[in-house]
Amino acid sequence: MTTLTLIPEALTREAFAPFGELIEASDAVRHFTINAGNTERYHDLARIEPGPDGRVIVSIFRGLPRSLPFRVEMMERHPLASQAFIPMSGLPYLVVVAPAGEPPRGRELRVFLAGGGQGVNYGPGVWHHPLLALDAVCDFVVVDRSGPGPNCDEVVLEVAGVIPALPG
Amino acid sequence: MTTLTLIPEALTREAFAPFGELIEASDAVRHFTINAGNTERYHDLARIEPGPDGRVIVSIFRGLPRSLPFRVEMMERHPLASQAFIPMSGLPYLVVVAPAGEPPRGRELRVFLAGGGQGVNYGPGVWHHPLLALDAVCDFVVVDRSGPGPNCDEVVLEVAGVIPALPG
Repeated sequence: MTTLTLIPEALTREAFAPFGELIEASDAVRHFTINAGNTERYHDLARIEPGPDGRVIVSIFRGLPRSLPFRVEMMERHPLASQAFIPMSGLPYLVVVAPAGEPPRGRELRVFLAGGGQGVNYGPGVWHHPLLALDAVCDFVVVDRSGPGPNCDEVVLEVAGVIPALPG
Repeated sequence: MTTLTLIPEALTREAFAPFGELIEASDAVRHFTINAGNTERYHDLARIEPGPDGRVIVSIFRGLPRSLPFRVEMMERHPLASQAFIPMSGLPYLVVVAPAGEPPRGRELRVFLAGGGQGVNYGPGVWHHPLLALDAVCDFVVVDRSGPGPNCDEVVLEVAGVIPALPG
Protein backbone atom coordinates (compact mmCIF):
# COMPACT_ATOMS: atom_id res chain seq x y z
CA MET A 1 0.00 0.00 0.00
CA THR A 2 1.21 3.47 -0.87
CA THR A 3 1.91 5.79 2.02
CA LEU A 4 2.72 9.47 2.24
CA THR A 5 5.56 10.74 4.36
CA LEU A 6 4.35 13.61 6.57
CA ILE A 7 7.14 15.87 7.76
CA PRO A 8 6.15 17.97 10.78
CA GLU A 9 6.23 21.74 10.30
CA ALA A 10 6.79 24.34 12.98
CA LEU A 11 3.48 25.53 14.45
CA THR A 12 2.99 29.22 13.76
CA ARG A 13 -0.07 31.44 13.79
CA GLU A 14 0.17 32.01 10.05
CA ALA A 15 0.68 28.37 9.10
CA PHE A 16 -2.20 27.20 11.27
CA ALA A 17 -4.63 29.96 10.23
CA PRO A 18 -6.52 27.82 7.65
CA PHE A 19 -7.43 25.37 10.42
CA GLY A 20 -8.18 27.58 13.42
CA GLU A 21 -6.20 29.52 15.98
CA LEU A 22 -2.93 29.05 17.78
CA ILE A 23 -3.42 29.56 21.55
CA GLU A 24 -0.17 31.00 22.80
CA ALA A 25 1.11 33.76 25.06
CA SER A 26 2.84 35.75 22.35
CA ASP A 27 3.55 39.41 21.67
CA ALA A 28 1.74 38.89 18.35
CA VAL A 29 -1.66 38.85 20.09
CA ARG A 30 -3.54 41.43 22.13
CA HIS A 31 -2.23 41.46 25.67
CA PHE A 32 -2.34 43.80 28.61
CA THR A 33 -1.22 44.02 32.19
CA ILE A 34 -3.68 43.40 35.04
CA ASN A 35 -3.60 42.59 38.75
CA ALA A 36 -1.50 45.60 39.75
CA GLY A 37 1.28 44.63 37.39
CA ASN A 38 1.53 40.99 38.45
CA THR A 39 -0.24 39.32 35.51
CA GLU A 40 -0.14 39.68 31.75
CA ARG A 41 -3.42 38.75 30.06
CA TYR A 42 -3.11 37.33 26.53
CA HIS A 43 -6.68 37.97 25.60
CA ASP A 44 -9.35 36.00 23.74
CA LEU A 45 -7.05 33.73 21.78
CA ALA A 46 -9.51 31.49 19.94
CA ARG A 47 -12.89 31.53 18.22
CA ILE A 48 -14.80 29.30 20.58
CA GLU A 49 -17.91 28.13 18.71
CA PRO A 50 -20.39 26.08 20.74
CA GLY A 51 -22.64 25.58 17.70
CA PRO A 52 -26.45 25.49 17.57
CA ASP A 53 -28.02 24.96 21.00
CA GLY A 54 -24.59 24.00 22.31
CA ARG A 55 -22.82 25.09 25.45
CA VAL A 56 -19.09 25.41 26.00
CA ILE A 57 -17.61 22.76 28.27
CA VAL A 58 -14.15 22.26 29.75
CA SER A 59 -12.67 18.78 30.04
CA ILE A 60 -9.25 17.24 30.54
CA PHE A 61 -7.94 14.72 28.00
CA ARG A 62 -5.21 12.41 29.28
CA GLY A 63 -3.31 11.13 26.26
CA LEU A 64 -1.05 8.10 26.13
CA PRO A 65 2.21 8.72 24.31
CA ARG A 66 2.48 7.48 20.72
CA SER A 67 5.71 6.28 19.22
CA LEU A 68 7.22 7.36 15.92
CA PRO A 69 7.09 6.53 13.11
CA PHE A 70 3.31 6.88 13.42
CA ARG A 71 0.77 5.86 10.77
CA VAL A 72 -2.06 8.34 10.20
CA GLU A 73 -4.87 6.16 8.91
CA MET A 74 -7.97 8.12 9.87
CA MET A 75 -9.13 11.65 10.60
CA GLU A 76 -12.14 13.12 12.36
CA ARG A 77 -14.07 16.38 12.48
CA HIS A 78 -16.67 18.07 14.64
CA PRO A 79 -19.01 19.70 12.16
CA LEU A 80 -20.99 21.80 14.64
CA ALA A 81 -18.39 23.34 16.90
CA SER A 82 -14.79 24.23 17.60
CA GLN A 83 -12.48 22.13 19.77
CA ALA A 84 -9.45 23.55 21.59
CA PHE A 85 -6.52 21.66 23.11
CA ILE A 86 -4.05 23.33 25.47
CA PRO A 87 -1.25 21.30 27.07
CA MET A 88 -0.95 21.12 30.85
CA SER A 89 2.27 19.12 30.68
CA GLY A 90 4.58 21.59 28.99
CA LEU A 91 5.62 18.87 26.53
CA PRO A 92 5.52 18.94 22.72
CA TYR A 93 2.88 17.02 20.76
CA LEU A 94 1.77 16.56 17.18
CA VAL A 95 -1.17 18.16 15.38
CA VAL A 96 -2.44 16.63 12.14
CA VAL A 97 -5.02 18.63 10.16
CA ALA A 98 -6.75 18.95 6.82
CA PRO A 99 -9.09 21.71 5.63
CA ALA A 100 -12.80 21.70 6.42
CA GLY A 101 -14.92 20.42 3.57
CA GLU A 102 -14.64 17.20 1.62
CA PRO A 103 -13.07 14.34 3.58
CA PRO A 104 -9.31 14.26 3.08
CA ARG A 105 -7.92 11.44 0.99
CA GLY A 106 -4.35 11.77 2.20
CA ARG A 107 -2.41 14.44 0.30
CA GLU A 108 -4.19 17.34 2.00
CA LEU A 109 -2.78 16.47 5.41
CA ARG A 110 -0.41 18.80 7.27
CA VAL A 111 1.44 17.96 10.44
CA PHE A 112 2.67 20.48 12.99
CA LEU A 113 4.99 19.97 15.92
CA ALA A 114 3.40 21.95 18.75
CA GLY A 115 5.52 23.21 21.61
CA GLY A 116 4.55 22.63 25.21
CA GLY A 117 3.33 26.23 25.52
CA GLN A 118 1.19 26.09 22.39
CA GLY A 119 -2.47 25.15 22.21
CA VAL A 120 -4.66 24.86 19.12
CA ASN A 121 -8.31 25.49 18.41
CA TYR A 122 -9.77 23.53 15.51
CA GLY A 123 -12.49 25.44 13.71
CA PRO A 124 -15.86 23.75 13.14
CA GLY A 125 -15.52 21.03 10.52
CA VAL A 126 -11.72 21.09 10.38
CA TRP A 127 -10.41 17.55 9.95
CA HIS A 128 -7.87 16.50 12.53
CA HIS A 129 -6.30 13.40 13.95
CA PRO A 130 -7.09 12.46 17.56
CA LEU A 131 -4.64 13.62 20.22
CA LEU A 132 -1.01 12.67 19.63
CA ALA A 133 1.05 12.98 22.79
CA LEU A 134 4.66 12.03 22.31
CA ASP A 135 7.01 11.52 25.18
CA ALA A 136 4.89 10.81 28.22
CA VAL A 137 1.30 10.64 29.41
CA CYS A 138 0.11 14.21 28.85
CA ASP A 139 -2.94 16.10 30.09
CA PHE A 140 -4.65 18.71 27.92
CA VAL A 141 -7.36 21.22 28.69
CA VAL A 142 -10.08 20.71 26.08
CA VAL A 143 -12.70 23.37 25.36
CA ASP A 144 -15.47 22.05 23.18
CA ARG A 145 -19.22 21.51 22.96
CA SER A 146 -22.02 19.75 24.70
CA GLY A 147 -25.30 19.81 22.81
CA PRO A 148 -27.84 17.98 20.73
CA GLY A 149 -27.09 16.17 17.51
CA PRO A 150 -24.17 14.12 16.21
CA ASN A 151 -20.93 16.12 16.18
CA CYS A 152 -18.19 13.69 15.18
CA ASP A 153 -17.46 12.30 11.72
CA GLU A 154 -14.61 9.94 11.00
CA VAL A 155 -12.98 9.08 7.70
CA VAL A 156 -10.48 6.37 6.81
CA LEU A 157 -7.81 7.79 4.51
CA GLU A 158 -7.35 6.31 1.06
CA VAL A 159 -3.65 6.94 1.36
CA ALA A 160 -2.19 6.59 4.85
CA GLY A 161 0.37 9.08 6.09
CA VAL A 162 3.49 8.22 8.03
CA ILE A 163 5.08 10.65 10.46
CA PRO A 164 8.74 9.67 10.70
CA ALA A 165 10.87 9.83 13.81
CA LEU A 166 11.72 13.43 14.71
CA PRO A 167 15.31 14.53 14.07
CA GLY A 168 17.50 14.95 17.07
CA MET B 1 -3.29 46.96 62.31
CA THR B 2 -4.82 43.58 63.06
CA THR B 3 -4.17 40.84 60.57
CA LEU B 4 -5.50 37.33 60.18
CA THR B 5 -3.23 34.40 59.58
CA LEU B 6 -4.50 32.35 56.65
CA ILE B 7 -3.26 28.77 56.65
CA PRO B 8 -3.56 27.09 53.24
CA GLU B 9 -5.79 24.02 53.09
CA ALA B 10 -5.49 21.13 50.67
CA LEU B 11 -7.62 21.71 47.58
CA THR B 12 -10.32 19.05 47.31
CA ARG B 13 -13.57 18.89 45.41
CA GLU B 14 -15.57 18.89 48.61
CA ALA B 15 -13.74 21.76 50.27
CA PHE B 16 -13.95 23.94 47.16
CA ALA B 17 -17.61 23.17 46.40
CA PRO B 18 -19.01 26.37 48.00
CA PHE B 19 -16.92 28.43 45.57
CA GLY B 20 -17.12 26.53 42.29
CA GLU B 21 -15.57 23.44 40.78
CA LEU B 22 -12.21 21.76 40.95
CA ILE B 23 -10.93 20.99 37.43
CA GLU B 24 -8.90 17.83 37.75
CA ALA B 25 -8.42 14.49 36.01
CA SER B 26 -9.68 12.35 38.87
CA ASP B 27 -11.51 9.08 39.20
CA ALA B 28 -14.11 11.02 41.21
CA VAL B 29 -15.50 12.63 38.05
CA ARG B 30 -17.17 11.19 34.97
CA HIS B 31 -14.54 9.87 32.59
CA PHE B 32 -14.42 7.51 29.66
CA THR B 33 -11.98 6.17 27.12
CA ILE B 34 -11.89 7.54 23.55
CA ASN B 35 -9.54 7.57 20.57
CA ALA B 36 -9.26 3.78 20.29
CA GLY B 37 -8.04 3.46 23.85
CA ASN B 38 -5.36 6.15 23.66
CA THR B 39 -7.12 8.95 25.54
CA GLU B 40 -9.11 9.21 28.74
CA ARG B 41 -11.67 12.03 28.69
CA TYR B 42 -12.46 13.60 32.08
CA HIS B 43 -15.68 15.18 30.99
CA ASP B 44 -17.34 18.56 31.56
CA LEU B 45 -15.53 19.50 34.73
CA ALA B 46 -16.89 22.98 35.44
CA ARG B 47 -20.06 25.05 35.21
CA ILE B 48 -18.94 27.56 32.61
CA GLU B 49 -21.35 30.50 32.82
CA PRO B 50 -20.90 33.23 30.20
CA GLY B 51 -23.66 35.35 31.74
CA PRO B 52 -26.25 37.51 29.98
CA ASP B 53 -25.32 38.23 26.36
CA GLY B 54 -21.82 36.95 27.10
CA ARG B 55 -19.65 34.58 25.15
CA VAL B 56 -17.03 32.21 26.49
CA ILE B 57 -13.45 33.22 25.71
CA VAL B 58 -10.11 31.50 26.26
CA SER B 59 -7.07 33.52 27.31
CA ILE B 60 -3.68 32.85 28.86
CA PHE B 61 -2.69 34.62 32.08
CA ARG B 62 1.03 34.82 32.73
CA GLY B 63 1.52 35.35 36.45
CA LEU B 64 4.61 36.63 38.19
CA PRO B 65 5.57 34.65 41.27
CA ARG B 66 4.64 36.10 44.65
CA SER B 67 6.70 35.59 47.73
CA LEU B 68 5.50 34.41 51.11
CA PRO B 69 4.47 35.61 53.61
CA PHE B 70 1.87 37.34 51.39
CA ARG B 71 -0.60 39.98 52.52
CA VAL B 72 -4.15 39.58 51.21
CA GLU B 73 -5.50 43.11 51.24
CA MET B 74 -8.17 43.02 48.55
CA MET B 75 -10.52 40.63 46.79
CA GLU B 76 -12.47 40.77 43.54
CA ARG B 77 -15.49 39.12 41.96
CA HIS B 78 -17.08 38.78 38.55
CA PRO B 79 -20.79 39.11 39.24
CA LEU B 80 -22.02 38.06 35.80
CA ALA B 81 -19.97 35.02 34.92
CA SER B 82 -17.68 32.21 35.97
CA GLN B 83 -13.89 32.32 35.61
CA ALA B 84 -11.72 29.21 35.35
CA PHE B 85 -7.95 28.92 35.84
CA ILE B 86 -6.01 25.83 34.78
CA PRO B 87 -2.23 25.71 35.15
CA MET B 88 -0.03 25.08 32.10
CA SER B 89 3.15 25.01 34.17
CA GLY B 90 2.51 22.00 36.38
CA LEU B 91 3.46 24.08 39.42
CA PRO B 92 1.45 24.69 42.60
CA TYR B 93 -0.26 28.02 43.26
CA LEU B 94 -2.55 29.59 45.83
CA VAL B 95 -6.30 30.16 45.65
CA VAL B 96 -7.95 32.64 48.02
CA VAL B 97 -11.74 32.71 48.09
CA ALA B 98 -14.76 33.94 50.01
CA PRO B 99 -18.43 33.12 49.40
CA ALA B 100 -20.52 35.03 46.90
CA GLY B 101 -22.70 37.68 48.46
CA GLU B 102 -21.73 40.50 50.78
CA PRO B 103 -18.13 41.70 50.37
CA PRO B 104 -15.80 39.80 52.69
CA ARG B 105 -14.37 41.70 55.63
CA GLY B 106 -11.53 39.28 56.32
CA ARG B 107 -12.64 36.35 58.47
CA GLU B 108 -14.56 34.65 55.65
CA LEU B 109 -11.44 34.05 53.60
CA ARG B 110 -10.18 30.57 52.83
CA VAL B 111 -6.89 29.71 51.19
CA PHE B 112 -6.16 26.55 49.22
CA LEU B 113 -2.86 25.24 47.97
CA ALA B 114 -3.60 24.00 44.44
CA GLY B 115 -1.42 21.35 42.88
CA GLY B 116 0.03 21.78 39.41
CA GLY B 117 -2.59 19.42 37.95
CA GLN B 118 -5.52 21.21 39.56
CA GLY B 119 -7.57 24.00 38.05
CA VAL B 120 -10.42 25.92 39.63
CA ASN B 121 -13.58 27.51 38.31
CA TYR B 122 -14.95 30.38 40.36
CA GLY B 123 -18.72 30.59 40.23
CA PRO B 124 -20.36 33.91 39.32
CA GLY B 125 -19.97 36.39 42.15
CA VAL B 126 -17.50 34.30 44.16
CA TRP B 127 -14.93 36.56 45.77
CA HIS B 128 -11.33 35.63 44.98
CA HIS B 129 -7.88 37.10 45.05
CA PRO B 130 -6.10 37.72 41.75
CA LEU B 131 -3.76 35.00 40.52
CA LEU B 132 -1.09 33.90 43.00
CA ALA B 133 1.72 32.02 41.28
CA LEU B 134 4.42 30.91 43.66
CA ASP B 135 7.72 29.60 42.46
CA ALA B 136 8.19 30.85 38.94
CA VAL B 137 6.46 32.74 36.15
CA CYS B 138 3.43 30.52 35.45
CA ASP B 139 0.97 30.43 32.58
CA PHE B 140 -2.69 29.57 33.13
CA VAL B 141 -5.49 28.85 30.72
CA VAL B 142 -8.34 31.16 31.67
CA VAL B 143 -11.92 30.51 30.54
CA ASP B 144 -14.17 33.47 31.22
CA ARG B 145 -16.52 35.97 29.64
CA SER B 146 -16.59 38.67 27.05
CA GLY B 147 -19.77 40.68 26.99
CA PRO B 148 -21.52 43.93 27.81
CA GLY B 149 -21.66 45.52 31.23
CA PRO B 150 -19.22 45.84 34.13
CA ASN B 151 -18.12 42.45 35.43
CA CYS B 152 -15.45 43.13 38.04
CA ASP B 153 -15.94 44.43 41.58
CA GLU B 154 -13.08 44.96 44.00
CA VAL B 155 -13.15 45.30 47.75
CA VAL B 156 -10.45 46.33 50.20
CA LEU B 157 -10.54 44.07 53.26
CA GLU B 158 -11.17 45.61 56.67
CA VAL B 159 -8.85 43.01 58.16
CA ALA B 160 -5.94 41.96 55.97
CA GLY B 161 -4.95 38.31 55.80
CA VAL B 162 -1.41 37.00 55.85
CA ILE B 163 -0.45 33.74 54.18
CA PRO B 164 2.67 32.52 55.96
CA ALA B 165 5.56 30.73 54.34
CA LEU B 166 4.64 27.16 53.44
CA PRO B 167 6.12 24.41 55.59
CA GLY B 168 8.87 22.37 54.05
